[in-house]
Amino acid sequence: MQDCEREKSVGLVETRFVEFAPPGGIALDGGAVLETVTVAYETYGTLNVSRDNAVLVCHALSGDAHVAGYNSPEDEKPGWWDNMVGPGKGIDTDKYFVVCSNILGGCKGTTGPGSTNPATGEPYGLDFPVVTVSDMVRVQRELVRHLGLESLLAVVGGSLGGMQALTWAAEYPEVCRGAVLIATTHVAGAQQIAFDAVGRTAIQADPDFLGGDYYGTPGPRRGLAIARMMAHITYLSEVSMNQKFGRTFRNAEGPAFSLNNEFNVETYLGHKGKAFVNRFDANTYLYTTRAIDYFDASEGFPSLDASLSRVRGRVLVVSFTSDWLFSPQQSREMVFSLARAGGDVSYCNIRSDYGHDAFLLEVETLSRLISGFLDGVQYPDRDCDTCHRPCSQHRENPVEGTPGVRLFDRQHRVDYDMIVDLVEPGSRVLDIGCESGQLLCQLMRKRQVRAFGIELDEEQSVRCVESGITVIQADVQKDLSGLPDGSFDYVILSMTLQVLEHPEKALKELLRVGRKCIVSFPNFGHWSVRLKTFFRGQAPVTPHLPYQWYDTPNRHVLTIQDFRVFCRDLGIRIEREICLSGDGPVRVWPNVRADEALCLLSQGR
Amino acid sequence: MQDCEREKSVGLVETRFVEFAPPGGIALDGGAVLETVTVAYETYGTLNVSRDNAVLVCHALSGDAHVAGYNSPEDEKPGWWDNMVGPGKGIDTDKYFVVCSNILGGCKGTTGPGSTNPATGEPYGLDFPVVTVSDMVRVQRELVRHLGLESLLAVVGGSLGGMQALTWAAEYPEVCRGAVLIATTHVAGAQQIAFDAVGRTAIQADPDFLGGDYYGTPGPRRGLAIARMMAHITYLSEVSMNQKFGRTFRNAEGPAFSLNNEFNVETYLGHKGKAFVNRFDANTYLYTTRAIDYFDASEGFPSLDASLSRVRGRVLVVSFTSDWLFSPQQSREMVFSLARAGGDVSYCNIRSDYGHDAFLLEVETLSRLISGFLDGVQYPDRDCDTCHRPCSQHRENPVEGTPGVRLFDRQHRVDYDMIVDLVEPGSRVLDIGCESGQLLCQLMRKRQVRAFGIELDEEQSVRCVESGITVIQADVQKDLSGLPDGSFDYVILSMTLQVLEHPEKALKELLRVGRKCIVSFPNFGHWSVRLKTFFRGQAPVTPHLPYQWYDTPNRHVLTIQDFRVFCRDLGIRIEREICLSGDGPVRVWPNVRADEALCLLSQGR
Repeated sequence: MQDCEREKSVGLVETRFVEFAPPGGIALDGGAVLETVTVAYETYGTLNVSRDNAVLVCHALSGDAHVAGYNSPEDEKPGWWDNMVGPGKGIDTDKYFVVCSNILGGCKGTTGPGSTNPATGEPYGLDFPVVTVSDMVRVQRELVRHLGLESLLAVVGGSLGGMQALTWAAEYPEVCRGAVLIATTHVAGAQQIAFDAVGRTAIQADPDFLGGDYYGTPGPRRGLAIARMMAHITYLSEVSMNQKFGRTFRNAEGPAFSLNNEFNVETYLGHKGKAFVNRFDANTYLYTTRAIDYFDASEGFPSLDASLSRVRGRVLVVSFTSDWLFSPQQSREMVFSLARAGGDVSYCNIRSDYGHDAFLLEVETLSRLISGFLDGVQYPDRDCDTCHRPCSQHRENPVEGTPGVRLFDRQHRVDYDMIVDLVEPGSRVLDIGCESGQLLCQLMRKRQVRAFGIELDEEQSVRCVESGITVIQADVQKDLSGLPDGSFDYVILSMTLQVLEHPEKALKELLRVGRKCIVSFPNFGHWSVRLKTFFRGQAPVTPHLPYQWYDTPNRHVLTIQDFRVFCRDLGIRIEREICLSGDGPVRVWPNVRADEALCLLSQGR
Repeated sequence: MQDCEREKSVGLVETRFVEFAPPGGIALDGGAVLETVTVAYETYGTLNVSRDNAVLVCHALSGDAHVAGYNSPEDEKPGWWDNMVGPGKGIDTDKYFVVCSNILGGCKGTTGPGSTNPATGEPYGLDFPVVTVSDMVRVQRELVRHLGLESLLAVVGGSLGGMQALTWAAEYPEVCRGAVLIATTHVAGAQQIAFDAVGRTAIQADPDFLGGDYYGTPGPRRGLAIARMMAHITYLSEVSMNQKFGRTFRNAEGPAFSLNNEFNVETYLGHKGKAFVNRFDANTYLYTTRAIDYFDASEGFPSLDASLSRVRGRVLVVSFTSDWLFSPQQSREMVFSLARAGGDVSYCNIRSDYGHDAFLLEVETLSRLISGFLDGVQYPDRDCDTCHRPCSQHRENPVEGTPGVRLFDRQHRVDYDMIVDLVEPGSRVLDIGCESGQLLCQLMRKRQVRAFGIELDEEQSVRCVESGITVIQADVQKDLSGLPDGSFDYVILSMTLQVLEHPEKALKELLRVGRKCIVSFPNFGHWSVRLKTFFRGQAPVTPHLPYQWYDTPNRHVLTIQDFRVFCRDLGIRIEREICLSGDGPVRVWPNVRADEALCLLSQGR
């Protein structure tokens, strides 16, 4: 098993070190200047000739530069993200040149509080200046320059690593062509700061802390272990802890009625604390958690939107449903801010019980997302007919039908062709409920549009990202308010109006964010529907409306005539109305003869 | 302001002490025996002649016997639950005789690790035996006997106090007529145990802990403060912390780029930690959190249901939406287990941002719930026509209408009278979507039924409890699976079938939990509906179905004929079918002429 893992890895790798001593030193956000900074880093894969395939990985609180592979043949374990970085993996070292460095303030080779203070010849200890995430990124910028990289295909990171990636995207937009922000946030909230503060208090209250000058002594082992134990709880979810430990006792005989280590979860936490102490420096813990506390991507700007308007690269945000440290809600705030700022942002919220740790554990879905995203950034204009996976997906694996549309061949939906005809080339198009992006794919190919999708389903959203389509996994009925007025030329709502709880509210929102709106819906005014209702006194079941009254997903029953009155009352102009039956467009008596209607709408007032 | 508070309080009260030394001592769950136990307690109000108005309040981790009023004229603050216990308050000392005692293992007068060990003449320290919640309750049982109380109207508690109340209900069913379980759980989960373990580690890692023998010295002040700081985070919610502190800096000038106390939330937590150390004993913290860890109401029984089948009294469970320490989900598990065990259990989930602390802060709603519940336990057979608030509520304040029913006078709904006629006297009846309990109220008065309600809305559920009606705040589409087969004689679903997402699934569930089911629904086969659809090709708007297609809450459109076919296909027997129009019952051509149908159903197979 382990040999197999070893074979699939990047193999033996070396941590390298580089010292930067720019004229005037490296100025930090807090006002201090570091004359020289040493950076520990590793690289995997090969830089291509055009030097545009570099991916920078940023590590989280307890990580280091050693992402993948083995530093020596004796190593039992590979780097911390070996399941993601390697040949054929999510970040494919056969395609990309991957770089990772230990952060500023770290304890794994980059200058930090345990490094020698040139002014004294002793370790810095608490004389080390407080650093911010921007400071960490500033040092990484030096490394990127040193490696001769003019641009980064993407900066990828989870948790604190995601904060660095977001900082890269905002502060170095000319370098950062893509950013993958996983299980992270744009700002540390009060709860986060509070947990960090308790951890720091535990370290500093330890008598062995010695004011931070504990180098050469055992150091604040108990305090650091307590900090880690507490933090570790925040990395898991309640569900995963109950699954993993429940209330199982350490001794098979059951309770010993003792104050210490009765339950397996206690033993586990104690072990986690001890293991951490053996590999981590307490001062680095203080400085790094403080950097997290200070993190606020809106700082120095009137708003988050204003700050994130600096971003030029494409962004992928990924959260996990059970992550309560950096919650999906925080990710959504960041996503919609990026969208409002005009950015090209995709978002997926992955169902997982693993809590915050999911970013290291949900490898399969994350790999699909990241590899698809990196491809999309590298080949933004790839043609659907020539590219690899995405299009074969759309040709060969048509996805399950939209409710109400069973008449049409899913692979050649008539209404899709009609919609494509309605859209002006080169427009910005938002498709609501875009599924895996079939329609958007056609629009990109035939109309060269800038395509955006909103999709509620996780798997469909992941498929969009895999296909290089920009998608936000969101609920059109709740989240659309996050988008600004008139940000799209067309908003498409295909066969979905009748399943929404509040179609009126939804349509108003669509015509707020889009200049025009293309809506299609099933016509319940069709003669077969009317006849059944009138003569049989039963809710109608027809080939085009195949549902029973009790299993229909259609919350609302409307006719073409209803829709006309509705639009008139709301002051919406119907610019085009195309009525369709199984045989094609219907021009005479559409309200009686059409199965479906497709309307191009604009704000009438 | 403070004088005003003082006037509304129970005034000056005294903590009293009593020593119990039963023959053979008090045996503890862990096997140890305490020869003597001193209990500190307070009482408020007057025991009535029939000695049946006693309410026992159980305190949480950091509480004590001093619930209400002032121990001396100099006291600046009243007891810990003064806003709930007092004249005219939620637990009304004009009506009830209220008792509270400090828990076993405590540090506020009841025997605990700081008490003198009679074997040594020194404080127990860690020689004090580990205690459980059952042990705490066992000692309270001695106090209750000492006070000459043969029964308790109710045992009320939040958090650890709720665990004690549940234990009372299960272990002393002959004494405990009612239990109010607030923000609590039936079992400590792995996350709870983990947080407790970190707190204990912090205390025991403090060099001043001295193996627990720190009495007469400052003691583990730093360790206890760290434990309290961390625990305090779990008492708040992320939202409330952001509202209260956000990222505000302690210094108005902004960041000082320091490791310590930059943010207000840090200062606040530090203050909370210090304040706690001044009033609490670290050993008691160890023992009490361990008692919480051990708490599992199912212990010694094959299942929670089996354990809770011992409960005879009525139970009210209250949770808070933002409480993540003891989540609403944990409360629901307890509620449905009690229901399955045949118990009389009500449940409300109060919308609050305060997190776990809400149990001390959401005074208004809690007061309504607790006072209504206590009244209901004290006067279970009170007649609707003679009792105070509940009926006037139902007579004078008819609640907002059920969707689809606008034709009928809300105060004299024709279908209610019909339903009452269908129900056999003395049955067990479950009303789904019972609103504030109008129909159940009628059924109790006219048919002497045992009434149970399920209601999704918080305010309506609270009103039910205020009216003495047993209600579970739950979603019929998700939570009904928690109820056992055939647990009711009738299940009523009045004008709700058509708004459910899955009527088929719901109806099957109703006929699983009830022997018979009474269902009413609007008839979309009415002639006015058919005519509009057929000739105008528009979704119908009629006096009885006044909604537009886009704003209707009715997800499903069905006719009486549809429903007959539906029941036939599902093997459901329609024992009675009553069709109604605005003028009363319709016997001829009901599918064309009736606005509404009411059916008595039973399982046909």
